[in-house]
Amino acid sequence: VQALRRLCRDAAARRADGVVVVEGRVLAAEVVERAAQSGSTVRVQAVYADPERSEAAAVARGAEALGASWYPVASDVLDKVADAVTSQGVVLVVDRPRWELASVRADGLVLLADEVSDPGNLGTLLRTAMAVGAAAVVTLGGSDPFSPKCVRAARGAQLVVPTLEVASEDEALDVARSGGRPLVVAAAGASTSMWDADLPGAVAVVVGNEAAGVRPALRAVADLEVDVPMPGGTESLNAAVTGSLLAYEHLRRHSL
Amino acid sequence: VQALRRLCRDAAARRADGVVVVEGRVLAAEVVERAAQSGSTVRVQAVYADPERSEAAAVARGAEALGASWYPVASDVLDKVADAVTSQGVVLVVDRPRWELASVRADGLVLLADEVSDPGNLGTLLRTAMAVGAAAVVTLGGSDPFSPKCVRAARGAQLVVPTLEVASEDEALDVARSGGRPLVVAAAGASTSMWDADLPGAVAVVVGNEAAGVRPALRAVADLEVDVPMPGGTESLNAAVTGSLLAYEHLRRHSL
Repeated sequence: VQALRRLCRDAAARRADGVVVVEGRVLAAEVVERAAQSGSTVRVQAVYADPERSEAAAVARGAEALGASWYPVASDVLDKVADAVTSQGVVLVVDRPRWELASVRADGLVLLADEVSDPGNLGTLLRTAMAVGAAAVVTLGGSDPFSPKCVRAARGAQLVVPTLEVASEDEALDVARSGGRPLVVAAAGASTSMWDADLPGAVAVVVGNEAAGVRPALRAVADLEVDVPMPGGTESLNAAVTGSLLAYEHLRRHSL
Repeated sequence: VQALRRLCRDAAARRADGVVVVEGRVLAAEVVERAAQSGSTVRVQAVYADPERSEAAAVARGAEALGASWYPVASDVLDKVADAVTSQGVVLVVDRPRWELASVRADGLVLLADEVSDPGNLGTLLRTAMAVGAAAVVTLGGSDPFSPKCVRAARGAQLVVPTLEVASEDEALDVARSGGRPLVVAAAGASTSMWDADLPGAVAVVVGNEAAGVRPALRAVADLEVDVPMPGGTESLNAAVTGSLLAYEHLRRHSL
């Protein structure tokens, strides 16, 4: 349990161990189900679950059947260890996926999150990216996409959608522009609205920091800046909403 | 300051005093600016601000110029009182708007939030509602739309967009169906996609609870259920994202 507490709290420990922590019964059940699917790259190493709670125990048995070790722990102990307010009696330790440029398919949408700093916003973006079947999400600075909070908000999408953390603008552009993708930047007030913008099937869309927007260095190299119309006079939308609207505008064009 | 602490923490106290608390310098500056606009219904009663911080003091002077009382308080004291992690040196106390059915114009979009329980999600929905120029947001149970957290996530949209808290399904339907609006419910797996759905100019869209979705009683009386396509195989989207996608689909149809 001490080891689990460290994994729940310490990003460096998670990285060193190559793991991701998945908290909460409902989400854990989804992740175990995904791991059980043939061809899945999701692998559960260990499950910490309360044997006295039947739903939690059911998730643990499912994980055990896939080869995970089950450590029985009481719910109130798990609640104290977990990052979430309540663990719902289950915490999984899952292999951290090794996403790299080769994981990104040549077509489809890449979402580049430029310093998106709120884990809930980044997780929500990842959740949408999975929903639309995006090719990848790239994070340049900002929140840790593999933190327990971000995993919860994303419903574990970072285990399925290639999610690449990059350290520099050059690296970000390498992934975003892979497959010849043009770089489209969300910029409030741009003269082209998202409805009129050229959004080819293979495209990279950049969403910026909650306060500062997209950094000037990325705006400078963008192929296109697009505006999300706000006739109500607001100055901006939530960063995850902006990214989701652009992801779905792309999907609408290419699925209809 | 004791009085302010109570207002920051206690929903009943805010309701009894008829006030809303706005925390944070950037947001407070936006709200003061909105209050200064001619015809604005936003009224700032009081500002608690650190006179030693020039940006905070500038907001306070702006509020004073509009008739608000300025209580000078050090930032570290404000940080302890506020609901937010940091107050950025400014907290406003603003008149709570008295939204009622008569505040809702006959045309346009009404968003009905059915037990949306996360204040960040509800606030994000409100922020989007303001961006698209929605006629109203109705909350049936769920999070308090006037809590400090919800005000922050909404960037104060509940001061501008009619935001009606209702206690029953009948009341919710009274507002949603005002102006003859059909009731459209977001329901994953519905046979009509949001892109194919009939979304007239005057329409009510229902978004459900994060875990349970829209309650059966509202689904039963819906004129239409719509699906947000998720080709990536996710089961659901974030509630605020679902509502924002539907609000923007409505805007796209009626602004192009």
